[in-house]
Amino acid sequence: MPKKQWGGRFRKEQDRLALLYTESVSFDWRLYPYDIAGSVAYAQMLAHCGIVKKTESGKIISALLEIDKEIVEGRFTFELELEDIHTNIEAALVKKIGADVAGKLHTGRSRNDQVALDMRMYIRDQTFSIIALIDEFQKALVKLAEDNSEVIMPGFTHMQHAQPVLFAHHMLAYYEMLTRDRNRFADCYHTTNVMPLGSAALAGTSFSINRAMVAKELDFDSVSRNSMDAVADRDFLIVFLSACAILMTHISRLSEELIIWSSPEFRFIEIDDAFATGSSIMPQKKNPDVAELARGKAARVNGNLMILLGLMKGLPLTYNRDMQEDKPCVFDSADVVMNTLRVFAPMMTSLTVYGDRMEEMCRSGFLNATDLADYLVKKGMSFREAHGVVGKIVTHCLENILALEDLPLETLRNFSPLFDQDVSGALDLNNVVNSRRVVGGTARANVLREIRRAKRELGIQ
Amino acid sequence: MPKKQWGGRFRKEQDRLALLYTESVSFDWRLYPYDIAGSVAYAQMLAHCGIVKKTESGKIISALLEIDKEIVEGRFTFELELEDIHTNIEAALVKKIGADVAGKLHTGRSRNDQVALDMRMYIRDQTFSIIALIDEFQKALVKLAEDNSEVIMPGFTHMQHAQPVLFAHHMLAYYEMLTRDRNRFADCYHTTNVMPLGSAALAGTSFSINRAMVAKELDFDSVSRNSMDAVADRDFLIVFLSACAILMTHISRLSEELIIWSSPEFRFIEIDDAFATGSSIMPQKKNPDVAELARGKAARVNGNLMILLGLMKGLPLTYNRDMQEDKPCVFDSADVVMNTLRVFAPMMTSLTVYGDRMEEMCRSGFLNATDLADYLVKKGMSFREAHGVVGKIVTHCLENILALEDLPLETLRNFSPLFDQDVSGALDLNNVVNSRRVVGGTARANVLREIRRAKRELGIQ
Amino acid sequence: MPKKQWGGRFRKEQDRLALLYTESVSFDWRLYPYDIAGSVAYAQMLAHCGIVKKTESGKIISALLEIDKEIVEGRFTFELELEDIHTNIEAALVKKIGADVAGKLHTGRSRNDQVALDMRMYIRDQTFSIIALIDEFQKALVKLAEDNSEVIMPGFTHMQHAQPVLFAHHMLAYYEMLTRDRNRFADCYHTTNVMPLGSAALAGTSFSINRAMVAKELDFDSVSRNSMDAVADRDFLIVFLSACAILMTHISRLSEELIIWSSPEFRFIEIDDAFATGSSIMPQKKNPDVAELARGKAARVNGNLMILLGLMKGLPLTYNRDMQEDKPCVFDSADVVMNTLRVFAPMMTSLTVYGDRMEEMCRSGFLNATDLADYLVKKGMSFREAHGVVGKIVTHCLENILALEDLPLETLRNFSPLFDQDVSGALDLNNVVNSRRVVGGTARANVLREIRRAKRELGIQ
Amino acid sequence: MPKKQWGGRFRKEQDRLALLYTESVSFDWRLYPYDIAGSVAYAQMLAHCGIVKKTESGKIISALLEIDKEIVEGRFTFELELEDIHTNIEAALVKKIGADVAGKLHTGRSRNDQVALDMRMYIRDQTFSIIALIDEFQKALVKLAEDNSEVIMPGFTHMQHAQPVLFAHHMLAYYEMLTRDRNRFADCYHTTNVMPLGSAALAGTSFSINRAMVAKELDFDSVSRNSMDAVADRDFLIVFLSACAILMTHISRLSEELIIWSSPEFRFIEIDDAFATGSSIMPQKKNPDVAELARGKAARVNGNLMILLGLMKGLPLTYNRDMQEDKPCVFDSADVVMNTLRVFAPMMTSLTVYGDRMEEMCRSGFLNATDLADYLVKKGMSFREAHGVVGKIVTHCLENILALEDLPLETLRNFSPLFDQDVSGALDLNNVVNSRRVVGGTARANVLREIRRAKRELGIQ
Repeated sequence: MPKKQWGGRFRKEQDRLALLYTESVSFDWRLYPYDIAGSVAYAQMLAHCGIVKKTESGKIISALLEIDKEIVEGRFTFELELEDIHTNIEAALVKKIGADVAGKLHTGRSRNDQVALDMRMYIRDQTFSIIALIDEFQKALVKLAEDNSEVIMPGFTHMQHAQPVLFAHHMLAYYEMLTRDRNRFADCYHTTNVMPLGSAALAGTSFSINRAMVAKELDFDSVSRNSMDAVADRDFLIVFLSACAILMTHISRLSEELIIWSSPEFRFIEIDDAFATGSSIMPQKKNPDVAELARGKAARVNGNLMILLGLMKGLPLTYNRDMQEDKPCVFDSADVVMNTLRVFAPMMTSLTVYGDRMEEMCRSGFLNATDLADYLVKKGMSFREAHGVVGKIVTHCLENILALEDLPLETLRNFSPLFDQDVSGALDLNNVVNSRRVVGGTARANVLREIRRAKRELGIQ
Repeated sequence: MPKKQWGGRFRKEQDRLALLYTESVSFDWRLYPYDIAGSVAYAQMLAHCGIVKKTESGKIISALLEIDKEIVEGRFTFELELEDIHTNIEAALVKKIGADVAGKLHTGRSRNDQVALDMRMYIRDQTFSIIALIDEFQKALVKLAEDNSEVIMPGFTHMQHAQPVLFAHHMLAYYEMLTRDRNRFADCYHTTNVMPLGSAALAGTSFSINRAMVAKELDFDSVSRNSMDAVADRDFLIVFLSACAILMTHISRLSEELIIWSSPEFRFIEIDDAFATGSSIMPQKKNPDVAELARGKAARVNGNLMILLGLMKGLPLTYNRDMQEDKPCVFDSADVVMNTLRVFAPMMTSLTVYGDRMEEMCRSGFLNATDLADYLVKKGMSFREAHGVVGKIVTHCLENILALEDLPLETLRNFSPLFDQDVSGALDLNNVVNSRRVVGGTARANVLREIRRAKRELGIQ
Repeated sequence: MPKKQWGGRFRKEQDRLALLYTESVSFDWRLYPYDIAGSVAYAQMLAHCGIVKKTESGKIISALLEIDKEIVEGRFTFELELEDIHTNIEAALVKKIGADVAGKLHTGRSRNDQVALDMRMYIRDQTFSIIALIDEFQKALVKLAEDNSEVIMPGFTHMQHAQPVLFAHHMLAYYEMLTRDRNRFADCYHTTNVMPLGSAALAGTSFSINRAMVAKELDFDSVSRNSMDAVADRDFLIVFLSACAILMTHISRLSEELIIWSSPEFRFIEIDDAFATGSSIMPQKKNPDVAELARGKAARVNGNLMILLGLMKGLPLTYNRDMQEDKPCVFDSADVVMNTLRVFAPMMTSLTVYGDRMEEMCRSGFLNATDLADYLVKKGMSFREAHGVVGKIVTHCLENILALEDLPLETLRNFSPLFDQDVSGALDLNNVVNSRRVVGGTARANVLREIRRAKRELGIQ
Repeated sequence: MPKKQWGGRFRKEQDRLALLYTESVSFDWRLYPYDIAGSVAYAQMLAHCGIVKKTESGKIISALLEIDKEIVEGRFTFELELEDIHTNIEAALVKKIGADVAGKLHTGRSRNDQVALDMRMYIRDQTFSIIALIDEFQKALVKLAEDNSEVIMPGFTHMQHAQPVLFAHHMLAYYEMLTRDRNRFADCYHTTNVMPLGSAALAGTSFSINRAMVAKELDFDSVSRNSMDAVADRDFLIVFLSACAILMTHISRLSEELIIWSSPEFRFIEIDDAFATGSSIMPQKKNPDVAELARGKAARVNGNLMILLGLMKGLPLTYNRDMQEDKPCVFDSADVVMNTLRVFAPMMTSLTVYGDRMEEMCRSGFLNATDLADYLVKKGMSFREAHGVVGKIVTHCLENILALEDLPLETLRNFSPLFDQDVSGALDLNNVVNSRRVVGGTARANVLREIRRAKRELGIQ
């Protein structure tokens, strides 16, 4: 006789290939802590509501906790034949306390609402962990900013020199991105924190169970309001993957910068040996592999999001087996995000910042051209006209291989009579940086204030 | 001389092909209301801060409002040569009031922060409109549910009959999804509602502008805290597209159901002639094209999200021209979502629901099998054992082409002595539905309560 | 001292987190047969060219074959610390025959060209296997078509009844798709079959190796013409994933049909117990899980393709570590495709086809309406006019709940005087099907001819 | 009365919103030349087969050619109410020659096979054009390589200096990629070149048409073998988009390089003014916008491919309206690819290559380290040991800020006694490059030979 949970009306064993094709325990075994915690809470409630006897629920709970221990200690054998984590645990329960009592745990519950519960508990845990890791990464960024608060670097648009900025200002841009990421994972937590159990297969159950009690026991904020939606919904997973994708986008941008800054042409930074690798053929190589892989893994998480969206598109209500494919892409993305955050925090704090080289490069590329235009504007010229004048001065410098600060006042006056003695101050690198005093600007005073704010937010005194 | 805003240092005209490749005004002209409103607020602030004279800002503002009127009335000619909407408007401004005054509007501002401002204002508007359209669609769903509150239909899992549910319950599952969608667009609004102007090209400006004043004037909650992040960030667009993708996923699922339910084999519903199309070759055809296209457009919005994520991945800070490609995918997705919601609301209210056919189909497929198992459980059997017993009864019925309710009590007793007279009540379709009284279940009382709650939420008395 | 291949200039051990983040042996161990075969051929060539001694290459080859045996027999321990499959094998080689001799295998070779070689050999193998499995699947489809060659079913457009077709014709549509798939994998084979070894890190090698000899030994058609391209190129993997995605698209379409046809409303087919699963809560359920999962896995392969495209976008030449992320998505897709083909072939042959039910449904939905219009055209009316006339007749039938064949001739004549006695023949289901005698049409004679052609192509006599 | 082609059985006009939602003529008007050419060929065949009279087909063809002329000359008004290009043209035909004759064109034809025909003819044209543009682009690359055949640059892996290569070798790597692209578009042409007309709605037609004649007239290689497949199949579009995505991946990689090489830190190249743009705020900026946009557009084409795959996934046979959404993503991708190729060819030939700067950078980063290791190997050391020795020498140089060629022989001998006088030759930049004489290597002789081969392939003498 088939040993599946659902074998009653089937006359034939499942084909071996079909079994291998449909099993999920090879990846959903990870859900065991949630499956067991959910079953424990459910058994307590069943007893409280008089649906099973207290002695029965006691037996069930003890056995479940034993199973949990066995899994944690590696003494539990997962069987592919038992399809999924839910059935594996239930079969073990039957073995321990007999089918009569064990069978009562499934009263008014289906795998459809059970897997929804497990995934929601899993996502809650992941968001907690990710938020904690974001904090650590932000601390690393703030430390890096603070340790290098004097360093001026070329700010880029289009990978061209635009205006000088503080290296710390640049690092704090990532701090901002990560704050948004944290908020997104917090939003994801709230979206997820709705208790689906009691929706049964799709229609709700006819047993007088107490859903609120299960929700409270398992720390959920509320219970789902529509049983069909509860078993068909995977929005919370899409929201989670979106948050993962955006976070990885941020890290991919930082990675691109680390990679480019490590090139011999830039030499802006050096990645610590502990976070680099070498070449099998070129003894001199030191490669920023962690950053490269993180950049690549951003594509992986984007693809995972695409899998989930492609999966859910056009599925009729309620549960369809396609939805089993939600797990590999979600598990993988959570792992990628956490592993990436874990390795980036220490990599960033161990970075060597070549401030001298950055400042050296600030002297080429006419980074103070905007300030020369602003100078003219402050003397009364319209910005557009000033932009044109400075454009011509830049052309002159390019032709004569000069920097703007190399031009004598009389030369400048050939371009506009508004230039005066004070122009040299306007072109000074430190002045240029510190003149951006507007909120959010790169002036040192601003940046130090933002560092203090960030430390407050991170609970660093 | 090149007439571009930035032509100062360039000796050559841009290549024609390059111009066509890089221009954006053919699609970003849509941003004109935001560009103008942003410039008006900026001019006011410049005057307030004494950076331009009140008379100058007055001239600028009047001319901007004239330009707005010209565009609205179709009297404005956009020129590809002027690249983008910002430059088109600025050139018109120069023509109206001269370069001297017009040029001052750009003081301390760059296209980098200007486009960020425009896109944020655009997204705010879209989220408002979408939320209003979601409301209308939810009203349609609730009306459809209420108008058909007596109808029982087969509930499906795996496209197989599972348990009977109220048609209204099924419709309210979509109500729940759309409530989550609305919340997501509201979250998107808050993510977006941060004022970037004053970040200038990337470093902030050295002019003493008042960013808070501009923010207040334009109804922003706050100003961005890091100028580099402000011009490099497109998170708010990814968040918007994610929300669009999830909403379209919901609609694609409803569409799949409408399409399948309209098939001659199902005949559960009929789409009104006004929302169907026919065939050029087959005179009898009535096709659910709107639903099919919506299902297809879900793929389109998913792809648009993928474009944006692919675009931003690995971009170094700050602004890169790749980011211009954020617009077509965002504009297209907003249009798709709004057009879909607009057409679905009336299509749903004009739907013919064939309740008799749905109930007829409830009699096949053993939809009350769970209830027979639950009956045994309530008599003391464990659920797992009951599941096995009912599995055998179903096999017996399949072999003899009978429904469960056709079996005489003595036959049932051959399978288990626990069966008694009251079993027929347990198998009655209405009883089966109404027994699911747990919160979120399909019992009629529950569903009517949820309809009332929905109407309250939608402000319908 | 660091034990990595590349440790020479590094002063510090790699950070443990960085090691875990960058290692690939946990998934690229699968490449071992190709890595070893490639090394054996390379060693032979090195000896042939006098770069190593024959005795040295003999030792290397014997040791490599031992390692291969150990891996096959599960006696080999892969170490994460050794990063990847290449280094794991090389370290084992050193252990067996000493660094002096083992070290010579790497002469003029880099991991960059080695991994390109291994992946190309892997893809060649996969395309072979997939083509063989496509053949088996096509045989199953042709058998199913042949076994049910009498069955007429409603042909659908927009999930509406359009015109009657042979069930066999419908199955042969999938035969056509799979023929294209096979051709695509064959094309992929040729794209892939270019030998990259000798490109070394990126520039080629200064040792006088014989690349053509290695190519011949390993059955490659040609050698790569540009060393930088050879190590930077992953086109062949994108081509492979595209072919996988299209094949899975085909199977997802078939799956959708199997799922819908299995619904109680359709009852067109029944999936064999061996390929279905049941429900934990509903004893009567029989779910088409294999088809649902295949539909879901199509999304997975699409996402995998997106990962690879996202990964490669914007990578500067030549090798970048991001490219290590090409493997999980490719391995996974190959597995999905092969497992899907393996399980679908027997599932299709074990299908029960309910021909009576299909024919029953041919009587509703006016499937012969086109033929009524064609009848009028053959009597001289223009198609467009005939289309209009038949549209009105259909409306009349809908209002009176009649089929077209139920209408007496006089009623038809009210709509057009062109109707005559022979109209009843034109409306007969078998005639309707068999009238489509045009090449590719559903007439039985055509379909039988196509079955014969297919059997010839598949080598079935 | 509804004026749609299919209005016969409909009692109500289509809702305005539904009309706007379902119309396609706003984008499929582009198909007009194919639609008309297809209809002309079809009309000829109908007359040839005696299905319409020669005089009728004569009238139809003349009118169709008039319509074509009107469209070309901009005198044709497309009406949204007429849904699509096919109906717009048919309605115009009716207006010109009356419904009686015009209506006969649709004999045995449906929009389902008509749109399949049009799209196949469109794709054939696009592949031709794209192949021609690839040729032009390859010519530009070869010219650039030839014009700079003396230039040595650092070859990169992981964005780190690896080994010196010829700039021309680097450019030829792109030549190789584009050759593969051309082959892929040629394959796409063959996949596409199958004639679907005659499949009618889905089942074939009962009129005795001659499909082979239409195929011959329209230059198709063969006719489709299964009518259901013919109207349901969009493989050829996925194949086209895959080819587009891979080509754009190549261009995105080149773009990334152009962008990075244009940075002030690299200064390897300068993009001509005609292909660059400036900044509205920073007068000194010269941005590689074309390259940035191309990189961004690669994401766009990837997303378009994802749309099409997502669209087709899980669609039951045969035609579903979702498939109308295949057009925007295909049209857009074809445009992107062609516009990109068009602008890149002249941009590449107008590039300024700073060979001196490239060679200067070859002196840092130990680009000849591999050659030092190879030197030791040639003296008898194993490669792995040599790799370790050179690693230590590199460390020594890093600590003392020296290049390898700066080390006196005695210092080298401290690391290994195998070093001798001839070591300086082995470290010379030109020797290093020219030593890579293996097929595909960067030796100048090789590269010149490859340039000659490329010119032959491109038909340049």
